[in-house]
Amino acid sequence: MSDHAKRRAPFLDMDPALFTDFYQLTMLQAYWREDWNKTAEFSLFARRLPECRNYLLACGLEDCLTYLEELHFSEPALEYLRSLGHFSDDFLDWLKDYSFSGDVFAMPEGTAIFGGEPVLEITAPLAEAQLVETCLINRINAQTLAASKCSRVLTAAQGRAVVDFGLRRMHGTEAAVKAARAFYIAGVASTSNVMAGSAYGIPVSGTMAHSYIQAHEDEAQAFRRFAELYPETTLLVDTYNTLEGVRNVVRMAQELGPDFRVRAIRLDSGDLADLSIRARDILDAAGLEKVRIFASGNLDEYSISRLRRSGARIDGFGVGTLMGISADSPSLDFCYKLTSYDGKDQCKFSTGKETLPGAKQVFRVEEDGKYVRDILAGREESHPGRPLLVKVMENGKRIDTDAADMVAARERAREDLARLPESLLGLEQVEHPYPVEISESLSARLERLREKRGK
Amino acid sequence: MSDHAKRRAPFLDMDPALFTDFYQLTMLQAYWREDWNKTAEFSLFARRLPECRNYLLACGLEDCLTYLEELHFSEPALEYLRSLGHFSDDFLDWLKDYSFSGDVFAMPEGTAIFGGEPVLEITAPLAEAQLVETCLINRINAQTLAASKCSRVLTAAQGRAVVDFGLRRMHGTEAAVKAARAFYIAGVASTSNVMAGSAYGIPVSGTMAHSYIQAHEDEAQAFRRFAELYPETTLLVDTYNTLEGVRNVVRMAQELGPDFRVRAIRLDSGDLADLSIRARDILDAAGLEKVRIFASGNLDEYSISRLRRSGARIDGFGVGTLMGISADSPSLDFCYKLTSYDGKDQCKFSTGKETLPGAKQVFRVEEDGKYVRDILAGREESHPGRPLLVKVMENGKRIDTDAADMVAARERAREDLARLPESLLGLEQVEHPYPVEISESLSARLERLREKRGK
Repeated sequence: MSDHAKRRAPFLDMDPALFTDFYQLTMLQAYWREDWNKTAEFSLFARRLPECRNYLLACGLEDCLTYLEELHFSEPALEYLRSLGHFSDDFLDWLKDYSFSGDVFAMPEGTAIFGGEPVLEITAPLAEAQLVETCLINRINAQTLAASKCSRVLTAAQGRAVVDFGLRRMHGTEAAVKAARAFYIAGVASTSNVMAGSAYGIPVSGTMAHSYIQAHEDEAQAFRRFAELYPETTLLVDTYNTLEGVRNVVRMAQELGPDFRVRAIRLDSGDLADLSIRARDILDAAGLEKVRIFASGNLDEYSISRLRRSGARIDGFGVGTLMGISADSPSLDFCYKLTSYDGKDQCKFSTGKETLPGAKQVFRVEEDGKYVRDILAGREESHPGRPLLVKVMENGKRIDTDAADMVAARERAREDLARLPESLLGLEQVEHPYPVEISESLSARLERLREKRGK
Repeated sequence: MSDHAKRRAPFLDMDPALFTDFYQLTMLQAYWREDWNKTAEFSLFARRLPECRNYLLACGLEDCLTYLEELHFSEPALEYLRSLGHFSDDFLDWLKDYSFSGDVFAMPEGTAIFGGEPVLEITAPLAEAQLVETCLINRINAQTLAASKCSRVLTAAQGRAVVDFGLRRMHGTEAAVKAARAFYIAGVASTSNVMAGSAYGIPVSGTMAHSYIQAHEDEAQAFRRFAELYPETTLLVDTYNTLEGVRNVVRMAQELGPDFRVRAIRLDSGDLADLSIRARDILDAAGLEKVRIFASGNLDEYSISRLRRSGARIDGFGVGTLMGISADSPSLDFCYKLTSYDGKDQCKFSTGKETLPGAKQVFRVEEDGKYVRDILAGREESHPGRPLLVKVMENGKRIDTDAADMVAARERAREDLARLPESLLGLEQVEHPYPVEISESLSARLERLREKRGK
């Protein structure tokens, strides 16, 4: 593994092949034994959007590609599998040379997507395409979840800076680092997560904690000491009494005169709207119009929107737990389904879990600079609109595209948001979801399969 | 790092010191510059329980101890920090020798805990105790969350086996592997997560996917092939038509006679209660009373409880996403607060965020084999009941206890659940939460501080 790849995939270095459901391995042995390894096509998609999402931002491709490139069974992994008593020596020998040799089409990271649209499509020998299901769903689900939630928070903030404060209550180190990347793609200004800064080059920021204030004799002393070291810092004013904290900042400004360069104060508790208005008044009355007000404390798109409506004078938001875990919808309905085997269309008819057959393409139709509808079609079909799924891997090797580049993805998300119908950008579920049409040809293929199955 | 430690902490090998909020590092430099590094005490606790939890199961200590033992700044980490332009060369040099030299008291993993009770208490020089906040909260939050949710699912299942199927929609590899350990502590029978099996020795299990059935000519053929290789398997019967699937199992049993050793069928969609009753009838009518019925598909404690009440004939549950992400409460209210500095009590009075001063102990009072109340007190106090917080680290070195041993923790959780008041084991919020009393002495210390602050 190159140093670069290692840096990009810090959590895949302990036998990625074992990050799978046990049944993938029992099925793998079954396929191997039956020599049942013709070309299969699988599609990874969200069956439907959660009620509180009108679109998703595709994310997680970079990790999926790294995983597929590096997939192998190490000696310790094989030893572990041997110890389980379910696998034959011949099969375990065969796993020694296992790697992924397939092709991948994907939505570039940062693309706005909708229910039913494939984010990733795999064409590979069945044994290769099946094993990777668990990890691919996991990566795409977690990171698309994070990017999509963050996009709503940014919309609610209406151009004010949003900083990711979420790492302490996200589900582990990796969850927090990967989500920080997804948030950056969605558009945050910076993150407080130093490891994410180091791993991905995302800007980091942060100020001081209540404990720093508490450790000093009094708040004014803590402010002075901190600003000596970091003259352009943000001072946390709510440890004891918020407005008294603001007045301590004003006193410090009066003492320091032109040497006062503090950029902002931070409110972290209480009635943020009211406190921000009163803090603004105190600062302005002291001629400190340039000092910005930054707020944090249990924020999300809903509370940010309420703050805005109640006239809060807040210039930026630190958003933590509720965005970090996508609290109102902490998972998405992603699944990974077989759509063809050995050249024959396949689909599943279980109640509420139908799938469409074959490899696909999504065509996005634009009118007057706005997206108006998508057409979900067979990959070989031609339709008006821009095809969204891009070939990103061939024969197990990554193709040089910008589909999984973080900076390109951030720009892509920005452009896509500007082109989405305005109605989708509200916080409530829209009455008329974005139209995703299934092409006539694809519908007909599904119908033929249904008739064949006698359903 | 020993091989053993490495195996237990697979995600900490990339500069654990950087898994922190940026402000921890700016504050660290400020403390260092002020030579402000006297002994501090910090307490990590959940302010209150979420509405849908009547108790929590403490979890995550093992990872916290490993983190504290291994904490250091690598050369690449220091290079990265240097590149940010906020840190002096002298400070970065000082970080080269940074390590954690403090003492830790903790609730052993698997202990039932309540709002306000410390899970972890740290005594260390301020600079050491402050930096670790982010990572400690992250570890304890994510793993306590998982164990606590799982405990409810197991209670709802009333002794029927529960298998962790959650990894594909948890928030990353690490989230899924660590949660699998927490679920095992809470009491699951096994996990589908092979990496968790390999990392922690948790039993793994699993059966077959719909795609395996689809890849074959028909369902009956797929069943036969799979059972040839895994005679005691579980067959998934709902790919096309559930009851037809059950009949295919019956036909196979009739064909194979005494060679038929299939242990169970799995239902994964539709009306699970109704289908399980009808499947049971079909199996029983064919003399297959021994074939168990296993169910999965969007299950949690609420749906398992409903299934039970509607007479479902289900012998075991595969529980995935909703448990994996603790969907009804995807985070807990854990925080980490300074409680003393240089021998002086400290606390915070911000609205709704009060803290109690000093190092603590929790005494659990038992009557007739049931827990009746806890007393939250200063660590030096004596009270009736069993003290729960155990010394697990001294001078930065782990003490040999079973507080973070997975198998001991599973047994501890089992015993604690049996001793909790019955009312806490329901799915709804209890009217009268478990009583946690604050000792008179601790209350008096808080009052003294409040008077001193003039509040």
